[in-house]
Order: sequence, then C-alpha cells, then structure tokens
Amino acid sequence: MAFIPEDPGFADRVRASFGRQRVMTTIGAELAAVAAGEIVIELAFRDDLTQQHGYLHAAIVTAIVDSACGYAAHSLMPLGTAVLTVEYKVNFLAPAAGRRFIATGRVTKPGRTLTVTTGDVVAETDAGRVAVATMLATMMTVRGRDITD
Amino acid sequence: MAFIPEDPGFADRVRASFGRQRVMTTIGAELAAVAAGEIVIELAFRDDLTQQHGYLHAAIVTAIVDSACGYAAHSLMPLGTAVLTVEYKVNFLAPAAGRRFIATGRVTKPGRTLTVTTGDVVAETDAGRVAVATMLATMMTVRGRDITD
Amino acid sequence: MAFIPEDPGFADRVRASFGRQRVMTTIGAELAAVAAGEIVIELAFRDDLTQQHGYLHAAIVTAIVDSACGYAAHSLMPLGTAVLTVEYKVNFLAPAAGRRFIATGRVTKPGRTLTVTTGDVVAETDAGRVAVATMLATMMTVRGRDITD
Amino acid sequence: MAFIPEDPGFADRVRASFGRQRVMTTIGAELAAVAAGEIVIELAFRDDLTQQHGYLHAAIVTAIVDSACGYAAHSLMPLGTAVLTVEYKVNFLAPAAGRRFIATGRVTKPGRTLTVTTGDVVAETDAGRVAVATMLATMMTVRGRDITD
Repeated sequence: MAFIPEDPGFADRVRASFGRQRVMTTIGAELAAVAAGEIVIELAFRDDLTQQHGYLHAAIVTAIVDSACGYAAHSLMPLGTAVLTVEYKVNFLAPAAGRRFIATGRVTKPGRTLTVTTGDVVAETDAGRVAVATMLATMMTVRGRDITD
Repeated sequence: MAFIPEDPGFADRVRASFGRQRVMTTIGAELAAVAAGEIVIELAFRDDLTQQHGYLHAAIVTAIVDSACGYAAHSLMPLGTAVLTVEYKVNFLAPAAGRRFIATGRVTKPGRTLTVTTGDVVAETDAGRVAVATMLATMMTVRGRDITD
Repeated sequence: MAFIPEDPGFADRVRASFGRQRVMTTIGAELAAVAAGEIVIELAFRDDLTQQHGYLHAAIVTAIVDSACGYAAHSLMPLGTAVLTVEYKVNFLAPAAGRRFIATGRVTKPGRTLTVTTGDVVAETDAGRVAVATMLATMMTVRGRDITD
Repeated sequence: MAFIPEDPGFADRVRASFGRQRVMTTIGAELAAVAAGEIVIELAFRDDLTQQHGYLHAAIVTAIVDSACGYAAHSLMPLGTAVLTVEYKVNFLAPAAGRRFIATGRVTKPGRTLTVTTGDVVAETDAGRVAVATMLATMMTVRGRDITD
C-alpha cells in the first residue's frame, strides 16, 4: 500500500529520532531504509546479545522490529507528534541464528490516534534468508507534549 | 497457585541457564528470585538502554519479563528439557521511567508441550512503584535436542 | 484494585448497553455481575455454538470475555462516551467443555484514551471449575460521537 | 507462498470438518474457498450478531477469521490429526459495518507441532471493500487422539 506522508520531511525526522534511541547504538542496530509507512532496521549478530542456546535473544529481535514498526507509524504522523508503542505481539518462527537480522515494519492501517503495523524479521544465514519473527503492533500518536519526536 | 516442580533441582537449573543468557549480563539484569512457577528479574535503569524520550526502551522492558516468564515455565519442566518462547504479547501501561525495574513471570497454566505465563513489570520511582508493562506469553518445552537447558 | 467510577450511574449504563448487544441474546449470554472495573458474563453450553469436536467454539468463549473486558473498561468511563475494542489476545488453556461458562473482565490500567483489561473464562464441569481461556485486551474511550453507549 | 499439502485429500477433510462446526451454521458462515494453506470464509451481515452500536460484534468477526486461520493450518497437516487454536491476537481496524464479511486465513509458517497463521477480514460496503480486522494466530497439530478432524 502506498501512503502519502503528512510531513514531507518525515525521513529526516525519523532518522533524527532513531539517532536518539540510545539502545539502538548499544546493540549496534542501523536504520537501513526509510519510506513513508515502511522502515527497515538491520543488526549484525553479536555474542553478547544471545540467550542461553547461543541464538539472538527474543527481546533483541523484538527491539529491532518494534522500532521498525514504531517508525513506520511515525513516518505518517504530522509534525509535532511523537510515537508510543501501545502494545505488540510477536511470534517467533525459527531460532534467531544467522550473521545479520533484517527487520521491516509496515503500516497496515494509519489512524489519527492509533496506527496498526506489522513487522517481520529475517535472518541472513549461509543457507539464505530465514524468517525468524513476525509482529502485530499498535502504535499511538502523542500530541501536545513537551517532547521532541 | 502453588506448583509442584517435576525437577527438585529446578532452581539451580534456572540459575545456570540464566547465567548463559549473555544479553542479561550485557544489559545488567539480575535474577532476583526463583520459585516453582514464579521468577523475578531486576534491572537498574541505564542511559544506554533508552528510547528517544529517555525512557527504558520497550524491548528492554520486554527482555526482562520475557526471561522471567520463560524461566517461570522452565522451573516446572522436567530435567533434560529446554524452554522456547513461542510468542508473547506485551501492553505498555506507563513510560518506563524509574531507577529500577522489577519483572515477575508466573505460570498460569503448565502443560506437557505448551505453558501459558503472565508477567508484569513495575518501576521503582521517587513516587513509589508504577506498573509499566504486562505480558501474556506462550512457552514451549523442547525435548530430545542436543542442547543444554 | 478498587476503582472510583467517574459516573456513579455506571451500572445502569453498562446494563443498558449490554442489552443492546444483540449477539449476547442470540448466544444466550447473561450479565451476571457489574462492579466498577469488573464485569461477569455467563453463558450456558449450547450445541449450536460448538466447533468440530463438540466444544464451545473459541470465538464464543472470546465473545463473552471480550464483552466482559469491554464493559469493565466502560464502567470507569465518563458519561457520554462509548467503548471500542482496539485489540485483544486470547490464550486457550483447555477445551471449552462444561455446562456453563463464566467470563470475568477486569481493568488492569484505566486511561483517558486507552484502558488495558484482562479477562478469564472458567467452565463449570462435573469435576469442578476449569480455566479455559485468558485474555489481554486494549479498549478505547470514544467521545463526541453521535452514538449512545 | 505455495505449500505442498501432506494430505492430497485436504480439501475434502477441511470441508467435512467445517461442516461439523455447528456455530458456523448458527451464524450463517460459509466456506468460500479452500486451498493448501489458505482458506476463505464468508458471512452475511445479520442484525442478531451485532454489538451495541449495530456493527457486527468483534467476536463474530473473530469467529470467521479464527476458523479461516485454523483450517489454513489444518489444510497442511497430515491425515489423522486435528487442529487446535492455541492463541490469537486480533486488531480491529474499522467498525464492522457492511453487507458481507470475507475472512481469509493464511499459513505464515507451518510446523510439525505449531503453525503460525495470519488472517484478515474485509467488509463489502457500498463504498467498496474495507479492512475491518487482522489476526495473528498460533495453531497446534493434535495427534493420537480419539477425535475426528
């Protein structure tokens, strides 16, 4: 689905906000693509982000797809608003093994107050790309707050 | 609800497995309490784990409550099994502001293959404890694999 | 948790609105208890509401607990507002066998726009009460619409 | 994604099982399309299935998309197995107004024990098709039971 962003400068706004998500720097996540209603975030595998079996921890998988969904929603919001994660559900489809993880967040249904998004995470492995997680999330537009994006 | 663990040594098993979750060390999370069917994990606030408004990132909140729910399920599983997160849903109730975060995971319904768990995260703030998130998660018992707990 | 309702006439409002949910009459559901932030809805087993194995269909279980959660949220909302289900997640804990089903919806966190609720469904069986489902749901306060409660 | 069904007679099996879901007859739902990994169920609007504002009740929307997702999963399962809904999450995107509702369930990731599915419901309205709900659900393969499909 093609969306018309309310703020033509949405990409700069998303990039600046992502830059303030300090946890993304901490885990080494990068904003790989920014389009109206669709965001891609990538992460290289790191040993210090694993669970007990040596796979990327579910919550790190969640971190990149949550941010991708949040910014997908944010890209369609007007200037002067912030995005908040209301809730999400994630299904884990395969162990998060691989050298790189690519999370894509997409807007399913934009709204004035609530935006519904879906996200997917694939792992790059020696055997090709493997789907590792899928998310369904509700994002909220926050207005009139004394906060930046 | 009181549960009778199948493995009387469950607490040592949970502690050892938690010790192998390298991401928990990375973010500074600690296993605070281990009981049959109920696990508490705590995390001190850290600037490098924040989202764009300076609160703890949703996924870090999720990390500690996912592990608390996973080990709550694991504590009731027999020896020689591992736990896997099938899926979870998290609702965020308030911005994750505070100096310390306490995640409690509890078994709602144990099962041979699937265990349903609920979790809560509260923040310690100057104004007292504030509920910041609630989780409903499905955990799976994995058998006959060549993996440790 | 004890809640102070904004509208002291909440119980009449909830009962009237429930009376307009025609599907509740169709399936034979009854409003069994109305308190501020907590609602109970009951349903007798009926053959014509079953799935392929003779149990109550998951969606009928969902119907009563969704309405219980929705009205639990509604009971705390001010006069002149309506409640809308934003989203829900349900885990099914046991086959919905039994002669009667009791759904309880409770407010976890009330809010101006969004209210988070949890719900449970138990079945009355010859062997006692059995938990059959648990719900985590987000409800929305709708204002300024030309609709009744 | 194209799936190879394990049971070449899957379509007859799905149709027979759907025929035993008595609640589908009760609400007037029809099995409109059966393919390997993708099922369509349709329902005409009926006044006696509405919520308090005259829209189709969320749980009836859920009923058709749950069954669509369940049978999408079932279509890929081997003979002699049954399907069980483990859990689902539904986001409601617009009021369920319209003369007819079309639910499509699709397999995202089949598995020996668990199958992840997604579903969508659109309403046929005078203004065209409107998306009213989206589901993310986990289905389980049940074996060795004394039950038919």
